[in-house]
Amino acid sequence: MSIAYRPSHADATYDMKYGVRAVQGGGRSSARETIGRVASGAIAKKILKQFSGTEVLAYVSQVQQVLLPDGSVDHDTVTLDQIESNIVRCPNPEYAEKMIAAIDAVRIRGDSVGGVVTCIVRNAPRGLGSPVFDKLEAELAKAVMSVPASKGFELGSGFSGAFLTGSEHNDEFYTDEHGRIRTRTNRSGGIQGGISNGEIINMRVAFKPTPAISRKQHTVTREKKEIELLVHGRHDPCVAPRAVPVVEAMVALVLVDQLMAQYAQCNLFPINAELQEPLSLGFPNFEPAMI
Amino acid sequence: MSIAYRPSHADATYDMKYGVRAVQGGGRSSARETIGRVASGAIAKKILKQFSGTEVLAYVSQVQQVLLPDGSVDHDTVTLDQIESNIVRCPNPEYAEKMIAAIDAVRIRGDSVGGVVTCIVRNAPRGLGSPVFDKLEAELAKAVMSVPASKGFELGSGFSGAFLTGSEHNDEFYTDEHGRIRTRTNRSGGIQGGISNGEIINMRVAFKPTPAISRKQHTVTREKKEIELLVHGRHDPCVAPRAVPVVEAMVALVLVDQLMAQYAQCNLFPINAELQEPLSLGFPNFEPAMI
Amino acid sequence: MSIAYRPSHADATYDMKYGVRAVQGGGRSSARETIGRVASGAIAKKILKQFSGTEVLAYVSQVQQVLLPDGSVDHDTVTLDQIESNIVRCPNPEYAEKMIAAIDAVRIRGDSVGGVVTCIVRNAPRGLGSPVFDKLEAELAKAVMSVPASKGFELGSGFSGAFLTGSEHNDEFYTDEHGRIRTRTNRSGGIQGGISNGEIINMRVAFKPTPAISRKQHTVTREKKEIELLVHGRHDPCVAPRAVPVVEAMVALVLVDQLMAQYAQCNLFPINAELQEPLSLGFPNFEPAMI
Amino acid sequence: MSIAYRPSHADATYDMKYGVRAVQGGGRSSARETIGRVASGAIAKKILKQFSGTEVLAYVSQVQQVLLPDGSVDHDTVTLDQIESNIVRCPNPEYAEKMIAAIDAVRIRGDSVGGVVTCIVRNAPRGLGSPVFDKLEAELAKAVMSVPASKGFELGSGFSGAFLTGSEHNDEFYTDEHGRIRTRTNRSGGIQGGISNGEIINMRVAFKPTPAISRKQHTVTREKKEIELLVHGRHDPCVAPRAVPVVEAMVALVLVDQLMAQYAQCNLFPINAELQEPLSLGFPNFEPAMI
Repeated sequence: MSIAYRPSHADATYDMKYGVRAVQGGGRSSARETIGRVASGAIAKKILKQFSGTEVLAYVSQVQQVLLPDGSVDHDTVTLDQIESNIVRCPNPEYAEKMIAAIDAVRIRGDSVGGVVTCIVRNAPRGLGSPVFDKLEAELAKAVMSVPASKGFELGSGFSGAFLTGSEHNDEFYTDEHGRIRTRTNRSGGIQGGISNGEIINMRVAFKPTPAISRKQHTVTREKKEIELLVHGRHDPCVAPRAVPVVEAMVALVLVDQLMAQYAQCNLFPINAELQEPLSLGFPNFEPAMI
Repeated sequence: MSIAYRPSHADATYDMKYGVRAVQGGGRSSARETIGRVASGAIAKKILKQFSGTEVLAYVSQVQQVLLPDGSVDHDTVTLDQIESNIVRCPNPEYAEKMIAAIDAVRIRGDSVGGVVTCIVRNAPRGLGSPVFDKLEAELAKAVMSVPASKGFELGSGFSGAFLTGSEHNDEFYTDEHGRIRTRTNRSGGIQGGISNGEIINMRVAFKPTPAISRKQHTVTREKKEIELLVHGRHDPCVAPRAVPVVEAMVALVLVDQLMAQYAQCNLFPINAELQEPLSLGFPNFEPAMI
Repeated sequence: MSIAYRPSHADATYDMKYGVRAVQGGGRSSARETIGRVASGAIAKKILKQFSGTEVLAYVSQVQQVLLPDGSVDHDTVTLDQIESNIVRCPNPEYAEKMIAAIDAVRIRGDSVGGVVTCIVRNAPRGLGSPVFDKLEAELAKAVMSVPASKGFELGSGFSGAFLTGSEHNDEFYTDEHGRIRTRTNRSGGIQGGISNGEIINMRVAFKPTPAISRKQHTVTREKKEIELLVHGRHDPCVAPRAVPVVEAMVALVLVDQLMAQYAQCNLFPINAELQEPLSLGFPNFEPAMI
Repeated sequence: MSIAYRPSHADATYDMKYGVRAVQGGGRSSARETIGRVASGAIAKKILKQFSGTEVLAYVSQVQQVLLPDGSVDHDTVTLDQIESNIVRCPNPEYAEKMIAAIDAVRIRGDSVGGVVTCIVRNAPRGLGSPVFDKLEAELAKAVMSVPASKGFELGSGFSGAFLTGSEHNDEFYTDEHGRIRTRTNRSGGIQGGISNGEIINMRVAFKPTPAISRKQHTVTREKKEIELLVHGRHDPCVAPRAVPVVEAMVALVLVDQLMAQYAQCNLFPINAELQEPLSLGFPNFEPAMI
């Protein structure tokens, strides 16, 4: 019976593709593999911090029906300590409590819930990303949609932007007190034309409820026999808090790749140095470690 | 003055990256480049159709406040003719009219609106996609998030799945009358563990309102001087209907790539042929052109 | 003193590139890494054998001044057993003895010698390789020139072909008793226009004398101080016999990659099946394991 | 009859692979495609020259039996003008005449001859290339073995190095008058451990005699019928002089790729700047254009 396909896991598709699968714990499809992403992401985050003062921070902004209201987290100032101050990784203590309560409510029933992770990048160097196929948002979308259980990706205004008019949505430019070209609003989410513009990059990633629940479900075996399955084991009732460092890691890895590409392509021979801000000098209060 | 950065276009970021830009019409960043995607996508669609009866169809499911209600399009039967029967590419005639009216309302004011494109894949072969980084949804997300003006991507339940519990969200398996393993619901959107499971793949892609509007906007020039800009030219007041064939093309190109990879990796030497359904024989009523 | 750069090792260039190096045994640049190539190559060889009866065999054809005369090894019949029958991996016992003697002569002086490895592929499927940049010989050249200590690569007539006229060099076609198109000679080395033609692929790879010798040499330290260096340790006096399985492995890995590419690109939809011989049915006496 | 396979052309293998081929002039397999390589190589050469004073120069060193003796071209001083001073692209006027005579002798008989192109890189930045699979010589070998009609590649001592002992072959280090670490000899050909060491990179590339000859040859048609074929048309009796700019272009393209990779990987964050010479400052008499 252990060979039965657990609903909404990778069990069935692995058999359909490879004709083999690891029965215990999902094997290759287990989210345990994200340890490698987080480990390499930690190095990527150090490089970004040291090179250009770039910070990547993610937090839980929704658990089932509990949504952080817009503007309740200040993206200019939110810190890792605030995010890590509670088990659900939400920097707003009041909502963190509500989220924990929502998770507890399903946990005791052997059920699970979905959630949303918001991720921001502060002090992102300008110029990252490429035209056409390898736009920065395309690279970011691929990276986070490869995280287990993710179901959706938004940049800036995202799906809510579809409700707006152009005059409501456009981000007007101005020149700030440091003489840098900035936008007054940031519905673009820090990326325009596939290239970072120096504003805060912000993304939202949807995660489905953990498919591993402690309830009887209908399913079939490898031999196509219909059965009732009760899965045992220790499972997270909500994957979103655990996904926070994984999303950060994937975003940081994409940015370091793009930073290297940008450095090689556009900084080996700057064509118009007045317009092309050096990668590591963009932020008024940042003192780069070297160059 | 033509050198002023149009708000929410790629003008500024191209200068920040390259130090050069094409002033007229956006140059390299213009959505005109999508002609190449559509042309190659047409070939990809033919290959998919001929090899495995696979069909890729997209349509407009939202224009600003006008949303197609869930279930108003039957994904098992919707046809290209239905979609192409009106200018807004919405297969539901009643909602198509509402969408056209919504677009007209902003068009006469020189403004624009956002929208959403839904894309489905019928008869997708099983087994497409790879574990870990190159999951099928990751490849699809990258492909459609590279389409100009896209701001978000969802697979299956997407962001609405974050509101559900596991017991509400899981897709239970059964064996159908042809002896094929199927799921009763399809919140997974046709992909589980990063690999297609043979159910209909369904995605939603958000598009922002066209940034080119015929209204005065504040912006800056290359020389960082703040000015008021009035952009002239012929622009689409809603990009979503035009994005329909581009989204289809990108999805078809991803699927052909994955089909070739799957054919080479898993069909050169099937390990367990009983479980690994031949790529082109999956669909009861489909007669493949050749093998 | 151990930090001195050993002449003709990778010590100095690793410092020039990375600013760090593993002092003991060469670290990342040690030929010990080839164990991974040989392990994966063993699987590649099994796939080739099972799928199309393809065999990859390499042997030592030169040690310093001792050269196997042309034609002294029959490429249609040479076996792994013959090659492995002696320590120098030369299938001709008489020349094997001469080679061993040549190696012994330098070994006792603490010196080393160079050599050449010949590699053949029997029953290579037709159609492997691509036009322009990824010609089969280009892929093979890259693969074997990445083997430590290799200094040269030849296909078929190689450098000796430069001495010939076109009328001496061209391989005329005929139709054999099985109705297959063949060439009477094989100066092309089994590849024409970058694509395998079904004849035996044959290559030669030059290896320099092992740079690790037990003799005093002039060199410099990291701090650019000139010193005399005497390297201790256990070293091969001739790398060629050890390179034999590594060359085989690299060639087998290239062929499996190309086989997969060919299977996906040209066998998913054969355009002209009469001309495009199925990959695994090319060889009259070979019974493929499966399709 | 025009559909007959010309011996040692790509005609037959294209049919074996694709089931289609361009009959006239070889189509996709024609060396006419090298125009694109030379055009992009010209830009690559400019970048190399401007960034690090790096020069890529190739010349004909052998035509059939006419071989330039070792040392007859001074690689420290040879110029493009010297190479381009005669039609055979050999910088030694005396040998150029002999080569031209050798070509003329076969040309009037409707035959062709092979040859060898030598290519050097002066002022190559240190540190280009990567460990294990992507060694600089592996990249160079692939690039030049993709040039039509090439049959062999050598770096530094190449095949002649196989005749030497380690004590004869090793390149001893010393510190020059500018305080740079150098090697007294250069049998390594400017690359050690897969990474450039700043000495002159030198390579030799073998080219077979042009297969297009104006003589009757035996061959078969697409339908496997044996016939006699007489090919008409205008053909080069020796491809080597024409290959000179193509080899230069491929080498320059590889070097720019590697330069960008090195700049991104090792110059974004130099670990040990004292050892890692800046890419563009390596050459005492070179004044870089910018940085």
